[in-house]
Amino acid sequence: MALKGKMVIGQSGGPTTVINQSLVGAVLAARKHADITGILGAHHGIAGIMNEDFIDLTTQSVDELECLANTPAAGLGSVRLKPGKAECERVFEAFRKHDVRYFFYIGGNDSAETAHIISEMAKDANYDFCTVHLPKTIDNDLRVTDHCPGFASAARFVALAFMGDDRDNAALAGVKINVVMGRHAGFLTAASALARQDEGDGPHLIYLPERVFDIASFQADVKRIMDEYGRCVVAVSEGISDADGNPIASSGERDSHGNVQLSGTGALGDFLSAKVKEAYAGKTVRVRADTFGYLQRSFPTIVSAVDAKEARESGAFGVEHAVKNGDNGSVAIRRLSNDPYASDYFITPLSTVAREATEMKDECIHADGNDVTDAWLDYLRPLVGPLPRMGKLF
Amino acid sequence: MALKGKMVIGQSGGPTTVINQSLVGAVLAARKHADITGILGAHHGIAGIMNEDFIDLTTQSVDELECLANTPAAGLGSVRLKPGKAECERVFEAFRKHDVRYFFYIGGNDSAETAHIISEMAKDANYDFCTVHLPKTIDNDLRVTDHCPGFASAARFVALAFMGDDRDNAALAGVKINVVMGRHAGFLTAASALARQDEGDGPHLIYLPERVFDIASFQADVKRIMDEYGRCVVAVSEGISDADGNPIASSGERDSHGNVQLSGTGALGDFLSAKVKEAYAGKTVRVRADTFGYLQRSFPTIVSAVDAKEARESGAFGVEHAVKNGDNGSVAIRRLSNDPYASDYFITPLSTVAREATEMKDECIHADGNDVTDAWLDYLRPLVGPLPRMGKLF
Repeated sequence: MALKGKMVIGQSGGPTTVINQSLVGAVLAARKHADITGILGAHHGIAGIMNEDFIDLTTQSVDELECLANTPAAGLGSVRLKPGKAECERVFEAFRKHDVRYFFYIGGNDSAETAHIISEMAKDANYDFCTVHLPKTIDNDLRVTDHCPGFASAARFVALAFMGDDRDNAALAGVKINVVMGRHAGFLTAASALARQDEGDGPHLIYLPERVFDIASFQADVKRIMDEYGRCVVAVSEGISDADGNPIASSGERDSHGNVQLSGTGALGDFLSAKVKEAYAGKTVRVRADTFGYLQRSFPTIVSAVDAKEARESGAFGVEHAVKNGDNGSVAIRRLSNDPYASDYFITPLSTVAREATEMKDECIHADGNDVTDAWLDYLRPLVGPLPRMGKLF
Repeated sequence: MALKGKMVIGQSGGPTTVINQSLVGAVLAARKHADITGILGAHHGIAGIMNEDFIDLTTQSVDELECLANTPAAGLGSVRLKPGKAECERVFEAFRKHDVRYFFYIGGNDSAETAHIISEMAKDANYDFCTVHLPKTIDNDLRVTDHCPGFASAARFVALAFMGDDRDNAALAGVKINVVMGRHAGFLTAASALARQDEGDGPHLIYLPERVFDIASFQADVKRIMDEYGRCVVAVSEGISDADGNPIASSGERDSHGNVQLSGTGALGDFLSAKVKEAYAGKTVRVRADTFGYLQRSFPTIVSAVDAKEARESGAFGVEHAVKNGDNGSVAIRRLSNDPYASDYFITPLSTVAREATEMKDECIHADGNDVTDAWLDYLRPLVGPLPRMGKLF
């Protein structure tokens, strides 16, 4: 018999362009179940629950919800808070008070951890309660699942950005460095490889946080590509680190500004530009760096169709599972076939997803550590979907 | 009677997402005229002509050209060279040698200047020759024309970027600074205002190079918006300068890197972030900066339909004019009506477009110098075209 009571749904961590699809998928599924007696949106995730700051999600029209589903970023507001035991107790107290029997938390591994702690607390208190984590992250670094909702759309942004930027670089040759999000996992940076359509297309070099970044090797790589093509487009993860594990971004002269964050600053790109200029000491070479920044997770209109569908369906699947089985877990995606692409969903225990994250497999990273492999492209291509053909005259 | 001989067409300056539309429009128009005995594409503009490095444009299929038209950046390659008298003589010599009677140069005011010098040279030499400048610039800073092909698509990118980024900022509140291209003219930065759909939407502050940028006023503005909305999204032109005309970008601590260019570096954004943090001395405030960079002029798939059409038609119009009238000039756009939007094309003398650029009208800039006016939005909206509606829950 299904649990009867209200549900709370929240969004957590860095937003994506499809996190509202998961929200709307869950809300529309929940509206079908009489056992769910109210749908409360947590305003800014766990912080909103602690303050009993809820947005009623029972009244919006389907049209309004569809508009929201196609809107980037977290419609309920997000939060970076990693709650301790005391905060989780406050959350649990709010759940009891409002007769909340279902909790859906859309986020990454930290959000899964929060959901896990709260579910354990309910168990200890013999409170009938069901917690389901709905996966979301542009970093694609959740364990168990084949891939994460949110990733493919960000990957699509990165691939498109590199396609256009590579044409720009071909028109006005030089070295172009593009810094891509991804603190510990290189999935999103690796998506830049999809921009290549013909021999000679960039990105010509791809540096991932999974491999040690050596500045001298980087300088030599760039010079080699410049000698071969007269131009060089570089994809680099914001999270690249040296052999001691120190982020390259923090090795620049920028510390005085207190810019310890990796995103929302141009420091790494500017640092690498300076290193390329240094390698060409005395010779004039055009070097530019862009840091794609928050556009990767928020730019509208370029969402991957597969990503939007899976984000929506994973939200609905989580609710259906909770109502039917009443037990905790995290929704994961299983790839059934690559051509034509097909996937389905399953539930994995919260503990298998919480806390620890994953990174790119060795088989997806080129042995030289400055590129990806065909195995990676085979994995990625169906998620991102068709890309426009770039016309060329030379 | 039309001039008989070959034509050369070239692209110059910073690429746009529709500059290949102008190229294809001109090429397809030229193919209809028997008097044009050959179509030569200049590889990297004036530099290609000097080296007689041409790409034959008579053989591509219409399908190939249509693919190129939808591809960002300069398909022929571009160049930043501002030729002197000697270089222009070399160009003119190449034209004589290849029996070139038509020259079409797609670019901004510098390219118009080049076209102008060459046309004067032909006149002095009694060489029957026709030069037409085809307008292109994301900066929108050409004189005479109502607006420039290339601008509206870049404006569309900026508007979309701010729409998504504003939702991201609403989800995780703080100060967000976005640096937009435009060295001397604020048109592109001002396009960010199109992102606003509801009261409270960002960008909340817009700083243009047409007004003196005062750091203390900026700090006070940000604090005022933060007090009102709890968050603040700022659009700032890369070209903002202080009362003495010194670019703010170069006032940062970044000079040691030799980053004198405004684009392709995150220096200005990081500098302004530091200034916001300074204004909040002691208090924690989340501050992030993104520099949109080259994506503004090269990101595929988000082109404005009006822009693509006008870029295409202005190329064709230039060729038709040259064949019919044989005289020099620059293609300009006249706005016939705003609702429904309609425009046509006319020829203006090269001297009216060459060298000097223009900037935003006073009536388009808010009296406080940190925003735009409704007059600006009325001008811009039909060029950029429909934008998606952002769904909101709070």
